This record gives sequence, C-alpha cells and structure tokens, in this order.
Amino acid sequence: MSEHRRPILALSMGDAAGVGPEVIAGCWSDARIHAVCRPVVLGHPEVLRRASDARGAGLVVERIDSVAQLDDSLNDAATLPCIAVGDADVLEVPHGTHDARTGEGAYQAVFAAAELALSGEIDGMVTAPLSKAALRAAGYDYPGHTELLAELCGVSQFAMMLYLPPGVANKSPAGLGVAHVTLHMSLREALDQITIDAVAQKCQLADDMMRRLGLAAPRVGVAALNPHAGEQGLFGEEELRVISPAVERARGQGIDTTGPLPADTLMIAARNGEFDAVVAQYHDQGHIALKLLAMHSAVNVTLGLPIVRTSVAHGTAFDLAWQGKAETTGMVAAIETAAKLASSSSVVQ
Amino acid sequence: MSEHRRPILALSMGDAAGVGPEVIAGCWSDARIHAVCRPVVLGHPEVLRRASDARGAGLVVERIDSVAQLDDSLNDAATLPCIAVGDADVLEVPHGTHDARTGEGAYQAVFAAAELALSGEIDGMVTAPLSKAALRAAGYDYPGHTELLAELCGVSQFAMMLYLPPGVANKSPAGLGVAHVTLHMSLREALDQITIDAVAQKCQLADDMMRRLGLAAPRVGVAALNPHAGEQGLFGEEELRVISPAVERARGQGIDTTGPLPADTLMIAARNGEFDAVVAQYHDQGHIALKLLAMHSAVNVTLGLPIVRTSVAHGTAFDLAWQGKAETTGMVAAIETAAKLASSSSVVQ
Repeated sequence: MSEHRRPILALSMGDAAGVGPEVIAGCWSDARIHAVCRPVVLGHPEVLRRASDARGAGLVVERIDSVAQLDDSLNDAATLPCIAVGDADVLEVPHGTHDARTGEGAYQAVFAAAELALSGEIDGMVTAPLSKAALRAAGYDYPGHTELLAELCGVSQFAMMLYLPPGVANKSPAGLGVAHVTLHMSLREALDQITIDAVAQKCQLADDMMRRLGLAAPRVGVAALNPHAGEQGLFGEEELRVISPAVERARGQGIDTTGPLPADTLMIAARNGEFDAVVAQYHDQGHIALKLLAMHSAVNVTLGLPIVRTSVAHGTAFDLAWQGKAETTGMVAAIETAAKLASSSSVVQ
Repeated sequence: MSEHRRPILALSMGDAAGVGPEVIAGCWSDARIHAVCRPVVLGHPEVLRRASDARGAGLVVERIDSVAQLDDSLNDAATLPCIAVGDADVLEVPHGTHDARTGEGAYQAVFAAAELALSGEIDGMVTAPLSKAALRAAGYDYPGHTELLAELCGVSQFAMMLYLPPGVANKSPAGLGVAHVTLHMSLREALDQITIDAVAQKCQLADDMMRRLGLAAPRVGVAALNPHAGEQGLFGEEELRVISPAVERARGQGIDTTGPLPADTLMIAARNGEFDAVVAQYHDQGHIALKLLAMHSAVNVTLGLPIVRTSVAHGTAFDLAWQGKAETTGMVAAIETAAKLASSSSVVQ
C-alpha cells in the first residue's frame, strides 16, 4: 500500500472515566498501527493529554479542526491528532464512575465518528469502550455500541462479531470470527428471535466479512442451540425446525456452511482451523469461547453497517482505569483489523 | 497410602463398537493408575483381548468371577482382570455402529458396576463411553450415564460435573470443577428448571465435591444465565429473581459462594485460579468452556450419588474407534480422580 493510500481511521475516545483514553494513548507508540492507517482521535484533547501522562507515553496531543488538516507531520508515533468533541465537563468526573457527563462525551465521539465515516471523510472507525449506564444517564438508551451504530447508520440487519486475528489462538488462515444471531437480550427472548431468516442472514454477514479479509470461500460453522445439537429432536426442535433450514438456505446462496453442530465441539474445531467463521446463536455461546481463547486480543466488529467499525472486546474496566496499566493488545488488533477491512478491495455492503 | 488400602475401582467397558475398550486397554500400562487403585474391568473379556491387540498393548486379559479373586498378582500393568458381563454377541457388531447388542452389553456393565459399588464390594466406578442410540435400541431410554446412574442409585438430587485435575489448564489448588444446574434437555426446558432450589443444591454438591478433594473452604462461582449477568434486569430477570437468592441461601449454609457473574468472564477467572468450582446453568455454558480448556483431560463426575463415579468426558467416537489411536489421557484422569474421591476421608453423601 502506498503511503498516501493508508486509510484514515477515527478512534472514538470512549468513556473518559474508563480505560479508553489510556488504551488509545498507550497504543500510539506501536509502529504497527501507523504502518497500516492514519489514525485520528475524536474526544477531549485534555483527557488524552492526561491519559498520555498516566501512561508515561510523552505524546504531543495536537488539536485539529477537521480531517482535512491531517497531514504526514501528524502521523507518527509521538503526535496524537485530536478533533475536539464534547464538553470540558468530562474532566470533572471522578475516574471509575458512571456519570451523565462522560456518557454524553462518549456518545458525541461515537456520533461524530459515524458521521465522518458515513460522509466518506474517513475510511473507518474504531471505538474505545463506553459505559452503558453512563450513556443511559445522559439520555441515550442502547444496550451497546452495536445497536447504537446500527441506528445511526439506519440498518436493521446487522450482527456483532468477535474476531481473533490470524495466529491469535486459532489456526484459520484469515483468523476466526464468531457472529452472533442474537445479542443483548435475555436468553428467553433470544430463543424467540432465533429464526430461519435471522440465522441465514448472519451466515451471509459472516461470509461477507471473511471474504473482505481475503478468503475466496470462507468455511462457516453454525452452532446448535441445544445440547448435543438437539440429539435428533430429543433435546429441542430448533435444530430441525430453524437452524437446519437456515443452513440449507445459506448453502443455496453459495456459502460453504456446515451445521448445526454441537456448540462445545464446534468451538474446538474452529480453534483448530476447521472453520473461518462460526455463527453463534446467543451472546454467551460465542463470548465464552472467544474470551477464553484470547480475551485481550479479540476484536469486536459490527457486520452489516455501510461503514467499517471495529472495537476492543473489553469494557470500560472502571476498576483499573487511569492506573496506566490497561492492556493495549486489543486496541492494536482492533485498529489493524479496521485498516484491513477499510483497505479491502472487495467491500460488500 | 499402604499397598492394601488402594481402593478397588470397577471400569465398565462401555459400547464395544466405540473407543471404550481400547481406551481401557491403552491406559493399562500407565503406572499412575496402578499406583492409586486396584482396577478391574466389567465387560466381555474377548472384546478386551481384541482391544489390547488393536492397541499393541500385549495385555493378558484374566477372567475372574468376583472382586474377591482380585489379588496382587492381578494388579500390574501387564495383566487386566476382567469380570465377564454381557453376551458374546457384542463380538458380532461392526465397529462404529449403533446396535442393540452393544447397547445391552454397555448397560449390563454399568449396571453390574453400580451394584458392586452400592454393595460396597468396590470403592468406586469409572465408565467408558456408551452410545445413547444403542442404549435406546436395547430398550433403555436415558439421556446419558448420569441420569441412568441416578436412577440405579435411587437419588433425585444429583449433578454432572466436568472436572479438570490440578495443573490441567487451570490454576486452582484442587483443580477446577464445573457443576451443571440443568443438563440433557432443550435450552427452553432448562430455563424452566433453573429454580432457587436447583441452583442452591448444585452449589452444595459442588462444595461437597471440592471438599472431598481436600479443600477446607472451596470458592464457588455461580454463572449468570443471561448476557452481562442480566444487566440489572435489562436482559432478563432470572439473576435477580432466582440466582441471587440461591447464592444467598448457599452462603447461609456456609458455602463460599459468589455470583451471579457474567459467564464469559467467570470462566476466565475460574481458569486463572480465582474459583475452585463453577456452577453453570445449562449444558453448553459449562461444556464450551471446559472442553475448550482441555477436552482430552476433562473428567465427568456424577455428584450426589451414594457411590463414587467418574467417566471420561468424551463420547464413543465411532469415527475413530478400533484404529488403536484413541487418546487415553481422559481415562487416566478419570481413574485418578475416582481413586482420590474413593480414598477421601471426608466423603459427604
């Protein structure tokens, strides 16, 4: 990739009381991220200065007014360009607390990043963690980033994927992605939302994602809902009535789909390189496996948006925020993955 | 432990068409099992002779009529004492197939082992895998060993635990056990069976088990049912309405219980040594985690029986049966764990 073709990625700062700012400041000196993209941060510049101090990162936080001001002098591991978003009152919020002011600041940064991505001024966005409680205190009621971004982008068919880059606790050539059919809802409600349409759509979204990462024919494994994949109907009928027909439909669309497979052994097969993507039926089914495999390196990717969006897989970690020691592996992986997706020639939207 | 105090353990042969016989023959030369117990096999001697051949194990299979005939000459790594159980027609069943004859043979071996354990002639039983389909073909309709043994022992409060011995993919001093509140049923039915009584009883059973393995105060972590532990009721009410009261009740009984905790991060904390036991709400919640951590070394322990019973965590593996290459780590771990439980001075029944 030639120098000027590196994609521009906006990083939303996340909740200022959590680990977001220091994770961004902490990963800035990693040459890998500057090699693959031109990053710019959306948030409050003073928060980022303090985060750099907390981290001992010694960064110059350079306030800019627009993406157009990004030039090569601002793209190095020592200078952090920041487009100021949100009020200064986030500076007054005690670290590690849920507060409407930091909730508002986090929302504004996500909103601004999504706007820039939708208008084409940037090539993708990477989000640092926000607090749902703080978001709610500020008047924004979303179960998470995923649903908020789907609404901002006006899409109704989307999915949350947890993704492990190649070589990170998996043997699949383009890494391993787990897309979720249902996400932030009770397990009881999830049971009602697992439909043929929903499962087949998630197969399609998972297939799209892995093609964008360079695979010609991704191998998609679909998890069963019930133990032992329902044991031929003895332990539940969803496999026969819902998941098998969805797998058939996905196959009819040319997707290399296998399933439903018992979730416990599917996750082992996927880790061992037998699948490129897994479709998990509910939140914990995917999260237990991927967090256990590589909690700090997992990337959260929103599938189905007209923009590129990735995130770290961890939360605000209020208990260790602003101690300058939060793990940055996940943020580096999230940036690298967003850069790869933004640079992909086969973007399917 | 003095020589003559090694507990006597009966190994039921499992389905003769699966990997059971060769896993037993394959582990026989492992000195570790003879150091901790005096094992005897229940099954058809000729099946075991053939399994020894398939394995290249060179064992002398010595048919005996009763446990009383077990003496030191029969307790070495080269001689396999076998109490004949079941008909010779199991020899006619093609390897890797479900058949009523091998189903009947597997049932008879389990039944005989349970009888010997209940009568006190042996100190515990270890089961090799059987096929539920073959069992059903023989007229025995059970979702698994666990439910069959509970019925043979006449108990209604029991639980299936997956257990990793100390040092096997976990950092807890006595190993890590995951007890399941619900097991072989649809997820929809499991939701209805997760009650305060059921969760509290499983905390008690998990605590008992870990005490028998030598801990004075096992740390029990209880998994939430819903994502994010229900997010204060936003994603389901079972945490507030059922699991929290059950945790309170267990605490009131003197059990060091924590929860409900989000299942994905609880499994990481447990692996890292922060808990000795986990109470999982449904089959896949526990199985995804433990199989991913150490599929071949996990031990299946039935809690709540008046007898000691362990098993390998894998199934009949019909696809690789009788090729002489099935992994024996799990059988060695199952025997060692049964020996430890049978030797425990603090058996709580």
